[in-house]
Parts: sequence; C-alpha cells; structure tokens
Amino acid sequence: MPDAQPTPTTRAARGSRIIARCRELARITDVPGETTRLYLSPATRDAHTLLTWWFRQAGLTARIDDTGSLRATRRGSHPNAPTLLLFSHIDTVPNAGAFDGPLGVLLGLAAIEELGHTPLPFHIELIAFSEEEGARFGFPFLSSLAATGQLTPELLSRTDADGISVAEAIRSFGLDPARIPETCQLPANTFAALEVHIEQGPVLEAREAEGDPKAAQLAVVDAIVGQSRFEMTFTGHANHAGTTPMPLRHDALAAAAQWVVEVERYAANYTQLVATIGRMTALPGAMNIIPGNVITSLDVRHPRDESRHAAVAHLLTKAEAAGALRGVRVQAVARAEQRAVPMDAALTLQLHQAAARAGFEARSLFSGAGHDAMIVASAAPTTMLFLRSPGGLSHHPDETVREQDVEAALATVLDLLLHLQPPQA
Amino acid sequence: MPDAQPTPTTRAARGSRIIARCRELARITDVPGETTRLYLSPATRDAHTLLTWWFRQAGLTARIDDTGSLRATRRGSHPNAPTLLLFSHIDTVPNAGAFDGPLGVLLGLAAIEELGHTPLPFHIELIAFSEEEGARFGFPFLSSLAATGQLTPELLSRTDADGISVAEAIRSFGLDPARIPETCQLPANTFAALEVHIEQGPVLEAREAEGDPKAAQLAVVDAIVGQSRFEMTFTGHANHAGTTPMPLRHDALAAAAQWVVEVERYAANYTQLVATIGRMTALPGAMNIIPGNVITSLDVRHPRDESRHAAVAHLLTKAEAAGALRGVRVQAVARAEQRAVPMDAALTLQLHQAAARAGFEARSLFSGAGHDAMIVASAAPTTMLFLRSPGGLSHHPDETVREQDVEAALATVLDLLLHLQPPQA
Repeated sequence: MPDAQPTPTTRAARGSRIIARCRELARITDVPGETTRLYLSPATRDAHTLLTWWFRQAGLTARIDDTGSLRATRRGSHPNAPTLLLFSHIDTVPNAGAFDGPLGVLLGLAAIEELGHTPLPFHIELIAFSEEEGARFGFPFLSSLAATGQLTPELLSRTDADGISVAEAIRSFGLDPARIPETCQLPANTFAALEVHIEQGPVLEAREAEGDPKAAQLAVVDAIVGQSRFEMTFTGHANHAGTTPMPLRHDALAAAAQWVVEVERYAANYTQLVATIGRMTALPGAMNIIPGNVITSLDVRHPRDESRHAAVAHLLTKAEAAGALRGVRVQAVARAEQRAVPMDAALTLQLHQAAARAGFEARSLFSGAGHDAMIVASAAPTTMLFLRSPGGLSHHPDETVREQDVEAALATVLDLLLHLQPPQA
Repeated sequence: MPDAQPTPTTRAARGSRIIARCRELARITDVPGETTRLYLSPATRDAHTLLTWWFRQAGLTARIDDTGSLRATRRGSHPNAPTLLLFSHIDTVPNAGAFDGPLGVLLGLAAIEELGHTPLPFHIELIAFSEEEGARFGFPFLSSLAATGQLTPELLSRTDADGISVAEAIRSFGLDPARIPETCQLPANTFAALEVHIEQGPVLEAREAEGDPKAAQLAVVDAIVGQSRFEMTFTGHANHAGTTPMPLRHDALAAAAQWVVEVERYAANYTQLVATIGRMTALPGAMNIIPGNVITSLDVRHPRDESRHAAVAHLLTKAEAAGALRGVRVQAVARAEQRAVPMDAALTLQLHQAAARAGFEARSLFSGAGHDAMIVASAAPTTMLFLRSPGGLSHHPDETVREQDVEAALATVLDLLLHLQPPQA
C-alpha cells in the first residue's frame, strides 16, 4: 500500500497529483518494464487494490461488479436523488501509456475529493470500466456493454489467444457471469454521464501552432464518429517486370496506388472526414515481378452517418475505376460498420459553459476513436471532455498530458458538478 | 533410353519433334509432378544422359565441361575453320515450363540434324549451359560466366540454401572447379554466337491482336536491356486513423502511392522503358493505423543506358517530391545496376535477312530479361532469336510455344547457317 498523501489544495497540486497517480497505476502491469493490463489479467487485481485504497481515502467504498469494473458512489443530498456517472477505463493496450483510461477515473476521483462535503442534488457513481480496449478478446467495450445490458451470450463466449472465453475469464477472476444483469447495470435513475479522456490525436495541439493556444487545452466532444471498414483486393496479372511493356500490363499495385491517392485527395476536401488505407501488400512481392494481387483496406469515419455513407460509395467507385483502367478486378468486403453516436446536446452545452465559467475555451470536437461513452450514451445522456494529447500520441509508452490541461479539466468538471441541476423527479 | 526416332523430313514434323523433345526433357525433374531442375541437381545427370543420346543420334559426341554444361561440336569443312556457337540453357526455375532454355538447345540440335552432311565453312559448337536461372545460388549465368573466363572465386564460393558452395556442388557432381579454365572456355576462334529463346513476354503475341500476324512469330533481339534496382523506404508517422485529421498526417503510404502512379505514367510515355514497383508493404499494417513506413522497390529497364539513367534520376526525384508534400522521408538504396548489352549489329542484320529469306518477318525487339547471350556477347559477336510466348507466359508450367513458330525459327536458323560467311582468316 502506498502512503496516504495529504489532500492537495492548490490547482497545480491537484493536477500534479492526478498525473502522479496515473503514473503509479501504470507501474501495475502484467509485463515488467512496460504498461500492459489486459482485461482481468493478474495485474487487474493489483490495480483494483490500489484504486480501492485511493477511493477509500476519498471516503468512497468501492465494489467490483461481475465484469470486473470497480465502482463507487458518492451519495447526494437526498436518498432518492438521481445519479451522475463519471467514468473511464483501466485496461490498456499492450505496451501502453499511463493516461488513456486511468486519467478519466482519477480525475473523477479528484473531483469528488475536491467536493469534500459539499452537498449536491445527485449521487455520483464513479466507474473504472474493466474492458474498453478490446486487446484481450479482440472486441472492445465489454464492461460498458454489460453495464447497459448489451453483453450478449455470443460476446461472453468469445475467446482470447489461449482459448479462454470471456465467461471463463470472469469466473477465474472470482466473479460470476450469471450475476452480470444484477451487479453491472447502470443505476436506473442516471440522468447524466461524463467521460474525461485524452484526445489521442493532434487536433488540440495543432491549435497552439495555429496561434490559438487558449483553445488548445480542452475540447467538448459533440459526437463520436461512425466507421466503415473494408478489406479490398485488387486482382490483375503478375508478369515479368522486364518483358512486359507498360501498355500490356495489368498491374494490381498501380491500380491500388491510384486509388490511395484519390482516397487521400477526396478526404482532404471535407474537414470532418477521415479515410485511411492502413494495409497494403503487393503480391507476389518480388522486385522483378509486376504485382498481380494487392491486399489493402479502407477505414472511413465521419460524425454524420449520411456523409460517411456517401464517402464510402464514392471511394468504392473510385477503386473500381482505377482497376478498370488497367484490367484489374476490385473486390470490397465490408468488415465493420458502426453508426455515429452524437453526444447529448444539452449536457454537452452545459460542459461548454462549465469550461467557460472556469476560464477555459473548450470548443467542439468530434471523437475519431471509439470510447465507452458511445456505449453509455445508449442508456443515458452522455458527453465527453477531451484533454490535449502532446504529440498526438497515445497507445505508446510516451503518451502524456500537460499538468495545466489536467488542472483545466478538473476545474471544468468541478464547475459542471457544482452547477448541474438534475431534472425534477 | 527412349527409342530412336526417325528423322523427320517435313517442316511440320521437325517443329513438332522439337516440341516433343522439350516436353520429354521436362519430365526429368527433381520434384515429381512438376519441372524443377536446379543447377547440378540429380535430375541434371539424367538430362545430360537423354541429351547425349539425342546428340549421338545426330552424329555428335557430347562432353560435359567442369561447370556441367553439355557441349558438342559439328566439324566444319576444314580443320582450322572458325566456330559458330548455338546455345541456351537446361536448368530451370522451380516449377518451370518446358521451353525456357531447352528450346534453344533442341532447336540447335534439330538444325544440325537438318544440315546432314552439308559442308559448312565453320564448326558449330552446340552448348547446353548448365546454369542460367540463378535459382540454386541466387546468382545467374554461372556457366556462361565460366565459358567467358568470368566465374570469379567469389562466385565459386557462393552457397545455396543448404550451405553448399558452387565449387562443392561442382565436385559433388564429379567435376573439378580447378579445370574450369581448361574445359569451359569458348573456342578462341568463335566468330558468331546465336541463342534461340522464347520471348517470355507478350509483345509478339500482341502484334497478332493489332492486326499484324506476320510479325508475331519471331523477333530478332537487338539489345538486352540494362537494369537498375532500388530498395525504397518511405518514412512518415504512424498515427490513429480516427483521431488524426487529413491535414495533420504524415502518411507514408499516400506518398508511396503517388509515386507509384507517377512511375507508371512516366514509363508509359517511352516505348522502350519499363519501370516496375514489385514490392509494397505498409507498416504497421493495421486497418486503423495510418502507415508510418512503407517498404517498396523500383526496377527500371531500358535498352539504352543513358535513357535508363535519366529515368532513374527523374523517378527518384519524384519519390522525394511525393514524400516532401507529406513530411515523409524517402530513402533509396541501389541494389543492382546492370548495363545494357547491344547484340552484334552485323550478325543481327544477317539474322533479319535469314528470316526474310525463309519467308518470315522478324522485327527488332529488345530483351527485357537477362540471357546467357549477354554474357557470351562479351567474348564473341552474339545475337538472339525470339519466338512468340503464348499468353506472354514463362516460368510457369503452362509456358508453351506454337508449332508454326518453332518451324519458322528452325527455318530461319537453317537459312542463317547456310548463308553465313565467317571472316577470312
């Protein structure tokens, strides 16, 4: 057990303490020398113990639900008060940084500590979700899906690399999948939910370079993008690089390359659209053979579904056309399709206002990555607060946050908590 | 031993016999069910035996030189006559066709058979080179390099996949590397050399589709292209596909793709230029990560070295520019540089004329692939005759030739032999 620390009183002390706690939690790992905490791994138990200790210092009694999420409630001024959720996750990708997930939990905890005995007209449930990254079972959001009644038997039977199912992993951890509906469900009277998270992208940081440093610290998330993913195959003819003149080629790579350039050019025309070709392998892959096959991929994201669908249709047509020019066949297989999730407009506006009152400019941003917030949003009005990611870096040991941004986020959350009025019962 | 076959007398019978012999030789393989005869493999010995039998039927006494090439001489009308070489190779790539190499040897043999006792003012040395493909030791032309005094100790010490050196392989076959200079050298009085080979490309076949069928059977090779090869690396930044807006990306694949399209477009402007990107791998290669690195290659070929050098310089500049647009660094490492080898102009003209007299139109073509002829050309006036490759196919079990094209090639070679006048001694 770490030593009890005195409660900080200045903003700077509070920011540095949140960061210190994130870094201390990051030392709890399944792989020595890095930060790797997969869902329900041995390190998860140590993380629960350390978090429970910190929760207890803040006067909170933590419990572990039957998907392994750690949860605690600060009581509101009357027993039947509705509930506000503060949440993020504590699992990590392999060789992760210290802030993706834990920051939201520990910033929520710090806010509760700051509140002291200030009475609020709502309960606050602080949730450290146990599974968000999808790193162990190849499928993300397992614990927030459970909390919203969406963890299906099919998902419970998914297996990890060792053939262990989600249900078996839950039992091995001493929990009971049969009790999930009972122990995991979000409070029925939840009226608002907030996830604080690092941006994991370069947009906020870029504002400083653009001469707009005040708007570079925080952002309010107004939507989480929808996604479409395709596996693409370009099939031409492999031929001898020396004996096949250019006009007689059916070069699968040249077709795919033209398409990559067109995808980049098209997406650059729309500020909210991102389109990415992440995979590209030319086969057979010899210096002196014209590629007969190319395996590639397409990932399209946009905060508005109709815009994403229009982009996908256009880009698939472009692939066909690039192939047709060269006698190359193109096949696109849909691999994923996820609708955009708008954040709650009223709650998001209140978060904007809270930031402004606290002295910060938190403009709207959409999230290009998925978060538990998109799952929780199916059950309660939800919003997110983003903090600048230095270097745009995440899922990397060098992932970090700036102290002043953590202080700004904490001040914003505190202001929101102090001003938020739950709907009249 | 196969049964002796009656000597054919008609053109059609001669063509079909050459093809039948190629197919019979193709059954001699190290890998049952396919045609695979690597340099000095066990199957090579059986190939020597069968060829020796066919040579003997033509009145030729074959010997095996100390790199394993099978050689025989038809004597000219006087003992001090100069020598004409007819040659190709009998090794194969793995899972090869029946004609790449053997056709040139067996067409040469058929020409000698047709000559019967016709006196000629020169000797004819028929050579079945033992190593051309480079498939066993990763380096081609070993036996023709030996025949021209260019098989260096470094090459003799190259090893195959089992760690056996060229010199050891020669000894294991019962030959003696120390005797190479003595037994392999081409005759000092060689005045002309001819390799007959399948085109291994689609150019001749395409002429038929273009309404020029008469010019589709044969071609005279006026040069073997020079080659430049580079390994290319594009280095940007790997980033999250969802959280990184298009303007903030350093997408190594987008840069490489723009370059691939420019390479294709540039090369298409020059009829004799071919430029190929054969390798392309995007890293880390996940659907949802912007590629930070791309490993690729460039292969440029042209029958004129200065044109090839100009193309390479232009294309490397284009790669830099495509990278610079996106903050992507480009590195090019030269992996191979081979000068173009012009065929002997006078001999090539005589081959043109021989084809014309025999009733065929054999236009000039350059060879986009390397051949023993480019090595032999360093020691003697050399030229090549190409036969149409149906489907442009080679290095494949379906590789084939048309009987009428083999007949045309044989008639052309016979006409050349009957008209060729060696220089006065």
